[in-house]
Amino acid sequence: MDGRFPAPLLVGFAARVLEAAGARRSDALITARVLVEADLRGIDSHGVARLPVYARRLKGGLINPRARLRGLKDSGSVLWLDAQNGLGPPAAARAMGRCLERAATEGLAMAAVRNSNHFGIAGYYAMMALDRGMIGVAMSNASPLMAPWGGRTRMLGTNPLAVAIPGGSGPPVVMDMATSQAARGKLEVARRLGRPLPPGWALGPDGRPTTDPAEGLAGLLLPMGAHKGYCLAVVIEALCGALTGGAMGPEVGELTAFDRPQGVGHAFIAIDPQAFVGLESLGRRMDEYGRKLKADRPAEGVERIYLPGEIEHEERLRRVKHGVPLPPAVRRELAALGAEVGVEVGFLAEG
Amino acid sequence: MDGRFPAPLLVGFAARVLEAAGARRSDALITARVLVEADLRGIDSHGVARLPVYARRLKGGLINPRARLRGLKDSGSVLWLDAQNGLGPPAAARAMGRCLERAATEGLAMAAVRNSNHFGIAGYYAMMALDRGMIGVAMSNASPLMAPWGGRTRMLGTNPLAVAIPGGSGPPVVMDMATSQAARGKLEVARRLGRPLPPGWALGPDGRPTTDPAEGLAGLLLPMGAHKGYCLAVVIEALCGALTGGAMGPEVGELTAFDRPQGVGHAFIAIDPQAFVGLESLGRRMDEYGRKLKADRPAEGVERIYLPGEIEHEERLRRVKHGVPLPPAVRRELAALGAEVGVEVGFLAEG
Repeated sequence: MDGRFPAPLLVGFAARVLEAAGARRSDALITARVLVEADLRGIDSHGVARLPVYARRLKGGLINPRARLRGLKDSGSVLWLDAQNGLGPPAAARAMGRCLERAATEGLAMAAVRNSNHFGIAGYYAMMALDRGMIGVAMSNASPLMAPWGGRTRMLGTNPLAVAIPGGSGPPVVMDMATSQAARGKLEVARRLGRPLPPGWALGPDGRPTTDPAEGLAGLLLPMGAHKGYCLAVVIEALCGALTGGAMGPEVGELTAFDRPQGVGHAFIAIDPQAFVGLESLGRRMDEYGRKLKADRPAEGVERIYLPGEIEHEERLRRVKHGVPLPPAVRRELAALGAEVGVEVGFLAEG
Repeated sequence: MDGRFPAPLLVGFAARVLEAAGARRSDALITARVLVEADLRGIDSHGVARLPVYARRLKGGLINPRARLRGLKDSGSVLWLDAQNGLGPPAAARAMGRCLERAATEGLAMAAVRNSNHFGIAGYYAMMALDRGMIGVAMSNASPLMAPWGGRTRMLGTNPLAVAIPGGSGPPVVMDMATSQAARGKLEVARRLGRPLPPGWALGPDGRPTTDPAEGLAGLLLPMGAHKGYCLAVVIEALCGALTGGAMGPEVGELTAFDRPQGVGHAFIAIDPQAFVGLESLGRRMDEYGRKLKADRPAEGVERIYLPGEIEHEERLRRVKHGVPLPPAVRRELAALGAEVGVEVGFLAEG
């Protein structure tokens, strides 16, 4: 049985663990919030289940706990930043925060960060724009897990792309996707649960299609929409790697190899609707269009039509109310981690 | 046998036809160049084969030949524009041109246009950035041809997205793709050539999978990468439609229905690498990364690994040298069109 845990409890626990592993308090708290937000949205692959990996990288000196986000160039609406090998979530959240401030005066801004680490769900940073009534875009490169289209060797990350667009009275549209047909984290979940993969997600280490999650994780993920996802992943490598002077493709360190820093890069864009039609009109049109899309007659075997981000939005409402479910394997790992770094874990036995 | 025609001859012919159909000379010339650039790049679906449709929309008063690109708001790095129902290519090329000028001073700029028409290949406008040493992004909404994921009714365009990134001594990376698994134009080509579609491209009007291009064109195109392409298409509707105050989804007029103006919207972004790592470094890193990707050992049955845009780049070199091939059906249509509007078409018999 999955235990269920209130999100604030998990945020507190994750922050204490990260602090005990060496992170600055403010960095630990931001990272904890980003992880638990993934759990709340039902993206279990990117939630507190990743805490042991982050903590291990901190403790092993692969992430610099004292890093500060350093400005390299500031052109008004453009910020070029270096995360100095700090934790990904605080670097990304602060970069997006500065980007939003600039967009408020300039109408549009972009911030790109090099020398960072895995930043969790891209959607978190895109959604930061919503509170300010803006459109947010977030992307990152990542550990290489895809081959060039037609190739055999890991040279591209599953490079996520997220866009958040304010709604009016309705919920926002939030696209948050890997450029692989499935996120690496989904293979990790399948492995944890002992479930086979749908066909079309992965190739084994021999370059042949597989439905075994362990083989897929040892092999290659397939890009979304075949060659199209490959092109999109290359573009994200260019914006997050080449443009920032950071690592690209095979230069990016493997998240779970614990052999070297990752050198991940991120890029963020914020657009103020006031520079166009205005926030109120944008929200009204998005609501209207969303209602039309959802009112379409579902195809055979389909129950409901969802807007981008709607499934996650509804899951969030449920999990805020009923708690975040954690499977026994994750609870055991977190309990071991807490015990290791000296953080109270009694609550994990009770969920 | 396909006849082959030098690109400048086709540009001249297309421009004269568009002018005879009512377009201003400068608008006709830009449109002709955009169409023939598609032909040069091997994207035959978006080339002069579309000339009869553009001319018919002009002559039928569905496109306003006297339209000027009107500024609605100007926030320095952001331009909100209205194309006043003019031809898509000149509106788009001028919007991107202004966007590039602004990016040269601001480091970053965005232009979005409402009330426009079909603009040809998105890649043309993204690639305009390359001559200025910038990164270009272009997107557009389009006639609805996709259903919401799980639905049955046309509510989303095949909304193209293009990104062009300068190389160093090597060619640029150019991604130019529809958010459907296949562009509508590819179904038109298949219908013209009497070839079946690969599975996974389309649903017939009954909502069931089809490999018949005519059925697919009468039915629905499937999004790239399943639900992921749906999300991307919704985001593009938001940026090109809701944000510009223009038409969205089913409000966009059907290109080939000739019943009403289209009301298409476009969005463009230009990024100056000088605000980041600099053009020289960007180009050098892109070249290096491109060489790595291409040096990967091809999978079974694959001859070569290509970079995004490389196939089109090589085809362009061949067609500049040997001419643009036009199948007999297209030549007949163009000859009839030329005769109708009083433009000399003798050359079409000779190719």
